[in-house]
Amino acid sequence: MKPVYYEEGVLKLIDQTKLPTELIIRSYTDYREIAKAIVVMIVRGAPAIGVTAGYGVYFGALEYVNETKEVFYDKMKEVCALLASTRPTAVNLFWAIKRMGCVLQTNSNKECSQIVELLKKEADDICAEDIQMCRDMGKYGAELIHAGDTILTHCNAGALATADYGTALGVIRAAHEAGKNISVYADETRPLLQGARLTAYELHAEGIPVTLITDNMAGWMMKQGKIDGVIVGADRIAVNGDVANKIGTYSVSVLAKAHGIPMYVAAPTSTIDFAMKSGDEIVIEERDCREISHICGIQVAPDGVAMENPAFDVTPHQNVTAIITEKGVVYPPYDINIPKLSGEK
Amino acid sequence: MKPVYYEEGVLKLIDQTKLPTELIIRSYTDYREIAKAIVVMIVRGAPAIGVTAGYGVYFGALEYVNETKEVFYDKMKEVCALLASTRPTAVNLFWAIKRMGCVLQTNSNKECSQIVELLKKEADDICAEDIQMCRDMGKYGAELIHAGDTILTHCNAGALATADYGTALGVIRAAHEAGKNISVYADETRPLLQGARLTAYELHAEGIPVTLITDNMAGWMMKQGKIDGVIVGADRIAVNGDVANKIGTYSVSVLAKAHGIPMYVAAPTSTIDFAMKSGDEIVIEERDCREISHICGIQVAPDGVAMENPAFDVTPHQNVTAIITEKGVVYPPYDINIPKLSGEK
Repeated sequence: MKPVYYEEGVLKLIDQTKLPTELIIRSYTDYREIAKAIVVMIVRGAPAIGVTAGYGVYFGALEYVNETKEVFYDKMKEVCALLASTRPTAVNLFWAIKRMGCVLQTNSNKECSQIVELLKKEADDICAEDIQMCRDMGKYGAELIHAGDTILTHCNAGALATADYGTALGVIRAAHEAGKNISVYADETRPLLQGARLTAYELHAEGIPVTLITDNMAGWMMKQGKIDGVIVGADRIAVNGDVANKIGTYSVSVLAKAHGIPMYVAAPTSTIDFAMKSGDEIVIEERDCREISHICGIQVAPDGVAMENPAFDVTPHQNVTAIITEKGVVYPPYDINIPKLSGEK
Repeated sequence: MKPVYYEEGVLKLIDQTKLPTELIIRSYTDYREIAKAIVVMIVRGAPAIGVTAGYGVYFGALEYVNETKEVFYDKMKEVCALLASTRPTAVNLFWAIKRMGCVLQTNSNKECSQIVELLKKEADDICAEDIQMCRDMGKYGAELIHAGDTILTHCNAGALATADYGTALGVIRAAHEAGKNISVYADETRPLLQGARLTAYELHAEGIPVTLITDNMAGWMMKQGKIDGVIVGADRIAVNGDVANKIGTYSVSVLAKAHGIPMYVAAPTSTIDFAMKSGDEIVIEERDCREISHICGIQVAPDGVAMENPAFDVTPHQNVTAIITEKGVVYPPYDINIPKLSGEK
C-alpha cells in the first residue's frame, strides 16, 4: 500500500481524502499541484509528506532545467519555499527539502540537467530509505509487543503515512508477521477521521484484527483492561523526547499513564528535530474550523459558533515509555539518549 | 428551549436528530410512536426521557380508557413495558414509569377516566418538577463556579436533555445569569455529536460564550491551562457515587484528575439509583455501530471492519469532586452522603 511513488515520469499519490470508499490514484508533474496536495491532505503523514516534497523539488527542477544556471537556482529557491510553506509541524518536510537543497548546493558546478538527475536520485533515495526505515522500526518495535497483545493506535501512522509499511503500523505489521496474534483498537481520530478512513482500512485490508472506536472510548477500553499498549507515530520529536503528533495523542498518553499502559512512539530519526530542546518550541498548526463544523460536507455545528482546531498536540516525554526508531529503541533519559542518534548512520 | 412539552392534547418533541440546522417540532399522541422517538433519540437526555415516558404512559392510558378496568390494567402493563424497553441505562426512565405505575396502583378503585386524569396530572408534575429541579441545581451549582471560569462540558446535559434549563448547562446558565462572566468548551461528543449539535446550539443561542472542540482536544486544552472546571450530567448514579454518563465522560474525568481540575456531576436525585451499590452493576447500552461507521448518512469507515459502540461509561466516584443535586451539593464520602438524600423531600 504505497501512498506516494514515482512511475514513468509522474508522481502518483493515493487521494487519502477519498478513502475508504474510493481508491483514487492521482498523477502529478507540477510542483505547485504537489504543494497543494500536501495542503489539502491528499497526502498526509509526516514521512509521506517528506517523500512527496522530495519529488516536488525534483519536478520543480525539471520545469526550469532549460533556464540559465542563475535563473534555475533562483527558481529552485521559490520551489523549495513553496513546498516548505505547505504545513508547519511535521519536521520530515523540512528535512527532505533540506536534503534536496544539499544536492543543489554541492552540485552547483554541474549542468542543470545533471543536477536534475541527481535530484531525482535523491528523491528516490528518500523514498527507498523511508521504506527501509519503516521495516527496521518494525523489527525493533515488534520486540516490545507480547503475544496476544491488544494495541491502541491513534490517527494513521501506517503505510499510508509513509512510503510504505508505516511507522506505528509498521511495528504492528511486524508483530503480526511474526505471528504474535495481536489485535488493534483504532481511534477514529476526529476531525479528519484518519483512524476510521485510513488505519481501519489498511489493517482490515491486510487481515490484522482491528476494532474501530471513537476517540472518547479509548479511556473506557483501558479501564476495562482491553488495551495492553499504545503505539503512535510522530510529526516532530524534540531532543528531550517531547513528541508532537496528531491532536488527541496527548490525551491518550495521559490515559495510558493513568492505567499503567506503555506508550510507544514509532518514528524515523528524520522526525527528530535535533535543534529543538523541548516540545514547548514546536509550532502547532491550527487548521480550518470547517473540519469540525462540517463532516463530509454536512454541517453538524450551529452557524457562528466559535471553534478551535489544533491539528497536533505535544506529549511530554514523561508520558513516553520508549521511542522506536530505525536505529533501535530509545529509552529515557531522552535528553541523553536522543542526541546519541544524531551522528549515527 | 423546551424539548418536551404537552400542548392541547398533543405531546410535542423537538426532533433533536435534526438540530442544529433544522428546528422541527414533532407531535405525538400514540405511545408506540413516543417509545420509538426515545429509541431513535428524537428525544434524549436522562431527565427528558423520563418526562417523555411519563406522557407516554398517559397517552397509552388515554387509548384504553373505554376498556373494562381489567383490560385497561392489562394494557397499561404492556404500555409501561414497551416504554421501559426503549433504553437501558438512564434510570430516570424507570423512575418516571414507576411514578406513573404508583398512580395506577393506588387509584385502582377509581373509574378509568378518573385514573387517566390523574396520570395526566402526574406527567405534568414530573415535567414541572424537572424544571424546578434544574433551577435548584443551577442555584447550588453556580456557587461552585468562580468568576471568569472556563468550564468544559461533555455531551448535552442542557435544556434539551431535560424539560427545560438543563442539569450541567443549568449550572452554567445560572452562573452566567449571576454575571460570573464564564465561558464554556463543548466536546463535540462522538458518535452522535450532541455537543456540537445541541450544547453549542443551546449556549450560542443564549449568548453564553462557547467554543466547540473535538473530544480528543479536551486534554490538550487542560494541559494549556484553558479549563478551570468540568461539569457533566449523568444517566445513572450508584449509591457509592459512581456515575454512568455519555461515553467519553470517564476519559474526561481521568484527564481532569491528572490536571487537578474539579469534576462536577449535575443531576437530579431521580438519577440516583438507591438500589445500586456501585457502578459495576450499571448496564451499558451498546448501540448500532452504524453510528460510528456513518456520519449524517455518509460512510467514513471501511466495509466489514469491527466496531464497538458503548453509549455510556462509568466514572468512578474517586474522580468526582462533587455531585450537584436539586437538594444541594453532595461531597465524598458518597456512600455515606448519597443515602441521606433518599428519604428527603
